Amino acid sequence: MTVNAKRTVSELKELRNFTSDENGAQRVAFTRTWVAAREWLKKKLEALPVEIHTDAAGNLWTTLQGESERALIIGGHIDSVPNGGWLDGCLNVLAGVEVLRRINEQYKGNPPITVRLVDWADEEGARFGKSLFGSSACSGNLNMDEARVLKDKDGISLPDALKQVDVDFERVKDSGKELKNAAAYLELHIEQGPVLLDLDLPLGAVLGTFGVERHAITFQGQAAHSGSTPMNRRRDALLAAGKMSQEIYRIAERSKGGVCTIGSCTTKPGIVTSVVAECRITLDQRHLDARALAKMLQEAKAVSERFAQEGTVGVSWERIWQIELVLFNPQLI
Amino acid sequence: MTVNAKRTVSELKELRNFTSDENGAQRVAFTRTWVAAREWLKKKLEALPVEIHTDAAGNLWTTLQGESERALIIGGHIDSVPNGGWLDGCLNVLAGVEVLRRINEQYKGNPPITVRLVDWADEEGARFGKSLFGSSACSGNLNMDEARVLKDKDGISLPDALKQVDVDFERVKDSGKELKNAAAYLELHIEQGPVLLDLDLPLGAVLGTFGVERHAITFQGQAAHSGSTPMNRRRDALLAAGKMSQEIYRIAERSKGGVCTIGSCTTKPGIVTSVVAECRITLDQRHLDARALAKMLQEAKAVSERFAQEGTVGVSWERIWQIELVLFNPQLI
Repeated sequence: MTVNAKRTVSELKELRNFTSDENGAQRVAFTRTWVAAREWLKKKLEALPVEIHTDAAGNLWTTLQGESERALIIGGHIDSVPNGGWLDGCLNVLAGVEVLRRINEQYKGNPPITVRLVDWADEEGARFGKSLFGSSACSGNLNMDEARVLKDKDGISLPDALKQVDVDFERVKDSGKELKNAAAYLELHIEQGPVLLDLDLPLGAVLGTFGVERHAITFQGQAAHSGSTPMNRRRDALLAAGKMSQEIYRIAERSKGGVCTIGSCTTKPGIVTSVVAECRITLDQRHLDARALAKMLQEAKAVSERFAQEGTVGVSWERIWQIELVLFNPQLI
Repeated sequence: MTVNAKRTVSELKELRNFTSDENGAQRVAFTRTWVAAREWLKKKLEALPVEIHTDAAGNLWTTLQGESERALIIGGHIDSVPNGGWLDGCLNVLAGVEVLRRINEQYKGNPPITVRLVDWADEEGARFGKSLFGSSACSGNLNMDEARVLKDKDGISLPDALKQVDVDFERVKDSGKELKNAAAYLELHIEQGPVLLDLDLPLGAVLGTFGVERHAITFQGQAAHSGSTPMNRRRDALLAAGKMSQEIYRIAERSKGGVCTIGSCTTKPGIVTSVVAECRITLDQRHLDARALAKMLQEAKAVSERFAQEGTVGVSWERIWQIELVLFNPQLI
């Protein structure tokens, strides 16, 4: 007995037909299109012997009751960014629907454990600039004070937008009770990089979420006239930053599995006739091994200081963000 | 018989006293402070047996008539940028005043050649964003169509501002007749770099004006997620630009006497979580030897293409400006 993958692809196309335009998926959370997508999803699920409800945070839960209360949760999100891809999020949900059908069929409506499908509300955070609304409310990680004052570009607050879909902002963490019997969580996702494609593999199991170190690095040199300042008298902030742009590739390579990215570079005064006085770059470092991540950061700091010294410029670091890595359960993997 | 340098320094201080504030010189062209500085200058000059007039472009000419009509012109500018240095421009003018005094004294008012002092109008271009107004009008190089539409930050046009100081914009090039008997031009200027200071020399003779090649270089890579894109799959536009930031030092060194400056670096999308898709840098190259300048440019283009190839990114060049080098007269030097 296998899942009917063709049916899922056909349903994904069906969803695309009424929630996308020529620029991509338009299922931004809490919009009419998103509501319509959910209604469509519910109709698909109602064909099964399941219980369906929306929790206090707007997450949609579908439960196929089993012998045991302990539940396998399959998650996804039917919301999209504006102009989203046709598989991001909704593939997870519709594959989950198919898995429910398959388990229901095999166990004739009574599997050994409970199986639940959750469609997280506003995973993307496209409208209010903060992702993972529904899941962070449910897991208890949502910062209420931060979220309460979020506004969209029209000035509408998150609490007001939630009211429109019958969610009371002050009660969203009540959704946490949904996790009471949670035993395992699985989520299918399209790959957001090129690795499986390169290796010609159809699927991979994620080992965990990267630990992240995110910093802004500012090199401080001196503005000087591009015509009258000899090369050996310059304190060129861009020169040091330019060296970093190459060095991070060596740091990542040595780390065996880590990645480093300089995503932004700004220069002051930033005019064609002046040596760069100040250069600010951002550095994003990720690794699945906490010690390796710490080493990557330490190496980046050390070379930034060496490059600063070589160019007689100053350097300062400022942490933007830090995420602890999470290794996934080996049995589930 | 020598010039009285102490008198010049004392006059520079006198000028500073009534045209500067705690931030520096405030003699922006066509302002009341500038007009006051010129009135003060004229009074100094009127003590000599000279003819003084303002030409059609607002340049102030002071003529010590000699046996020959052929004229040595000594130039400078009493206007300053906002918060200007206390010597830039006005040193030239006041040293010229002292030279006139000295020649007048030696030749008892009748030197073998005519000696003229010119105070160029709006050398700095601080208000309308275009420098060398008076001298380019006089030399015939002013682009009338461009200049006619220049506006200051309050929306006042250059022609309207000129009217306030009795200059008719449409006639500014009539000032060209001032150059009729010009035989030589000399200008004293403070050094705008650190070389003489380094060499502990009081004075240098300028050999010419640098030829300048000014370009924008755009590297075109591909945006990619900082977490999910392996290092060896990236097409990082900043990596190539970073290599350029170092290579220009080697290019300048090989050129023996040239300078190269990357003054600005901008990145797109320029966010912490994405590999840089597009990186635009400006390159300013200067040399006193036309062939060496052309070689510097050719070398920069060649390495930019090599770096682009190494990083699988594209590169395009766009010329921003080009100035022909001018070697000064060896006898005058």
